[in-house]
Order: sequence, then C-alpha cells, then structure tokens
Amino acid sequence: MADLNKPVIVLVRPQLGENIGKAARAMLNFGLTEMRLVAPRDGWPNPSAGPAAAGADIVLEQAKVYATTAEAVADCAHVHATTVRKRGVTKPVIGADEAGRQVHTLTGRHAIIFGPERSGLETEDVALARNILTVPINPEFGSLNLAQAVILVAYEWARIGREIADAGTVLVQPTAEDALPPAPQDELDGLIAHFEKLLGPKGYFLPAARADSTRRTLRGLLTKPGWNHLEVRTLRGILSYMERKERPD
Amino acid sequence: MADLNKPVIVLVRPQLGENIGKAARAMLNFGLTEMRLVAPRDGWPNPSAGPAAAGADIVLEQAKVYATTAEAVADCAHVHATTVRKRGVTKPVIGADEAGRQVHTLTGRHAIIFGPERSGLETEDVALARNILTVPINPEFGSLNLAQAVILVAYEWARIGREIADAGTVLVQPTAEDALPPAPQDELDGLIAHFEKLLGPKGYFLPAARADSTRRTLRGLLTKPGWNHLEVRTLRGILSYMERKERPD
Repeated sequence: MADLNKPVIVLVRPQLGENIGKAARAMLNFGLTEMRLVAPRDGWPNPSAGPAAAGADIVLEQAKVYATTAEAVADCAHVHATTVRKRGVTKPVIGADEAGRQVHTLTGRHAIIFGPERSGLETEDVALARNILTVPINPEFGSLNLAQAVILVAYEWARIGREIADAGTVLVQPTAEDALPPAPQDELDGLIAHFEKLLGPKGYFLPAARADSTRRTLRGLLTKPGWNHLEVRTLRGILSYMERKERPD
Repeated sequence: MADLNKPVIVLVRPQLGENIGKAARAMLNFGLTEMRLVAPRDGWPNPSAGPAAAGADIVLEQAKVYATTAEAVADCAHVHATTVRKRGVTKPVIGADEAGRQVHTLTGRHAIIFGPERSGLETEDVALARNILTVPINPEFGSLNLAQAVILVAYEWARIGREIADAGTVLVQPTAEDALPPAPQDELDGLIAHFEKLLGPKGYFLPAARADSTRRTLRGLLTKPGWNHLEVRTLRGILSYMERKERPD
C-alpha cells in the first residue's frame, strides 16, 4: 500500500498525553503512521503518551506539531472532519466506510481531523474540511472517546483497502485533467484570500456581525469543486484580471 | 431492532474492572446492552468499572456473572470467539463484518466472546465457538485492547444492521443543502455570462485568436462544481460586489 493511500491523522488541541498515546496505538494497529498534533494542551513531547502507546512509539516519535489546523492540513487535498454535531452544516456527511473508500480512491493526500476530547472540533476547523465524517452511534448514549474514534476510522480504512484489493477493482480511467488531484489546502487558502481581498473593500463582508458566516459560505462554495492546481491557477488569473483597470479598445 | 438481533458480549476472565467499564461504554455506543462476565478476576461488582463506563451504567448493572464460558453461552445458538491466534484451528475464520452479518441474519441468539486482556481465549473456550472472529490488524504491531476489540465488533454489528435495513440505498446521508440538485443549465449560463461581462473589458479574452479556448476553460471550471441554485445565486452576488466601486470606510 503506497503511503499516499494512508490518511494523515490530525489531533486538534488534544488534552491528555495518554489519549494521544492510545490514538497512536489505534493507528498502528491498522498500519497508519502519520500523526499530526495541533497545539496539544500540555505541550509536546508528553511523558504520558509513550506508556499509553503500548509500543507504537514510532508514531509518536514521528508526530509533527502545528500551531493551527490550517497549517497541519496545508499539504492535504482532502480534509475530513470528524464530528457528531451537524448544526447548520452544508457539507456532505459521510461514514467511516465512505471516508475509507475516498482515501483509497481519490488522489491527493487525505487528512482526518479529530477535535479535543471534551469539546470536539470548532466551527473554523470544520470549515477547512470537504466532508463531515460521522460514525452513527446510539443517539441515547452519545460519546466515543478519542482513541475509539481513531480506531474505527483506521479499521475502516484497512477494511475498505482489503475490499478494493480483493475485488481487483479497476477504477474508471480519468481524463488527464481529471487525474490531477485537488489542489492542496494552502493553494485553496490562497484562492480564498484572493477573493476576500477583492471583496472586502467593496463591503461584501458587511455588516461585521455577519462577516464570519459570510466567510464560511464563501469557503464552502470554493471548497466544493475540488479544483486542481491548474484550475486554481486559472481562477487566480481571473481574479487578477478583475483587479485591473478596464483597457481601452 | 429486536433484541434477538443483538449479540451477547461475553468477557471471559477479564482482569481489570476499568476494562470491563470501557467495554460497557463501547457496547452502549452502538446500542448493545447485554454483557456477561465469566469468572472476573477481581470479583463482581468491581468499583473500577463504573467510572470507566462513562455513563453506561445500565450495561454494568444488568451484567450477569458465570463460572464457566460454557454456562455463559448455554442459551446461545451461535458463538463467535474473538482471537488473533489461529494455530491448528479447524473452524471458519470470519471478520467483524461477517460476524455482524450473521448476527442479523442467522436466527437464534449470538454470543461474541472475548478473552482476558493479556492471554486471550483458551483452547477450551474457542472450542465452544462456531466461528473464529478475527480483525485483521498490522502483522508487525499486534494487539488490540479489550475495549477496542469490543467497539469494532459493536460498530460492525450496527453498520451491517443499517446496511441491511437500507437494503441497497447509499449510506452517505446528504444534508439538506447537498440534496439540492445542481442548478439548471440556464442559471449556469447566466453565471458564466456574468463572469464574461466582468472579464471582457479587462482584456481577459485577448488575444482574439485564443478567446474560444479561454471561454471553454472558463466554462469547464465553472461547470465542474455542480453548484446548486443557492450557490449560483451566492456567486452572482459575489460578482455583483466585484463590479461595485470601493466603499469609503
């Protein structure tokens, strides 16, 4: 299995080192090795993580730390946000099985992001994602702990991988341009920033009280297509032309 | 879902009360409630179980204790023994997905038995079983803890149950906005025309010999997302703002 088929597991603001260790163990149980940590509460490295990893030290040793979720997923073309809450969400909601399928079949790096133990992901973390990944659980008893959420995602990634390998699935041959993976998150961020730069001075984000919501709508709109590198470049060109003065005939 | 469709979870000679509690929580996450304990090492009830169950007290309160595995599964028509070891086994080996399928489709009570934390099930426990239930994990990193093994089994039971109930429908559940169909062609044409109106005067389609090709690229880019009616309307709004003059602060 090529590494590109393996999702990056991103723990956003994890609280307990023990839970980071358990998540590492759950990852390695199914062969996942790339962990990223966004602003871990108690710093990093954390002495409680190792013992809980029960031998999955390699995952912890290679873990990288980032200040923000956006930085942690900057090189990823596909971001899946795990959350049970779906208030006002306009993104596709998928299960762990469908997420596993996408990781194996959609080119480009995939990141699966998990929120802090108690509170879960914030709205701005979710805004970075293409999909909401949710595991349907007993509505009357509602919380999965962090390591359990990680293991279900890792399990489904491995299970679907075997299913695809066993079926000898032949993927539909994409056309050359289609075959380009969606642009990584940082190119998308650049595009969004360009839109904002043009729209801000025109008052698009007013009144100020609505600005955050308007920004999320804009981001959702521009995230949906999964434009590739060339397409993003073309759009940046379009925006640059819009900034120009009209040229005389 | 009828109770008969729910497997009994049997923990054989579990060692730590904490792990019994975590297993209870994992069960209830997916709606399983019947736990049986075979000769728990530290007796029963165990004061460490409750806190680890994180609210799944009903599972612990109803748990029944047995002296032997045979007694614990006496009323079950189907016994599935979870183990990673398959030395000299002549029973069918199935995954958690197939076990979930059998629980839903083969009449009679099903028991899924789990061994002690360190050693796993003994040969005589496995002998009671119809199937060996094994979750294929990373061969170079081999241990699932008890609660994680339980949650994978419970998850698959729930997942297969939904799959069967949905009978052919796709598991991906779109949100309301997602469910909107792509906007009709005339709205898309309106959007493209709006882009062209803004870009033309800026010289975007020059030189004239390249104009057709540039138009096709633009159309391809804007067709790809399959934006719905609301999204097209938002984009038209964005373009209208771009046409405005900058507003003074």
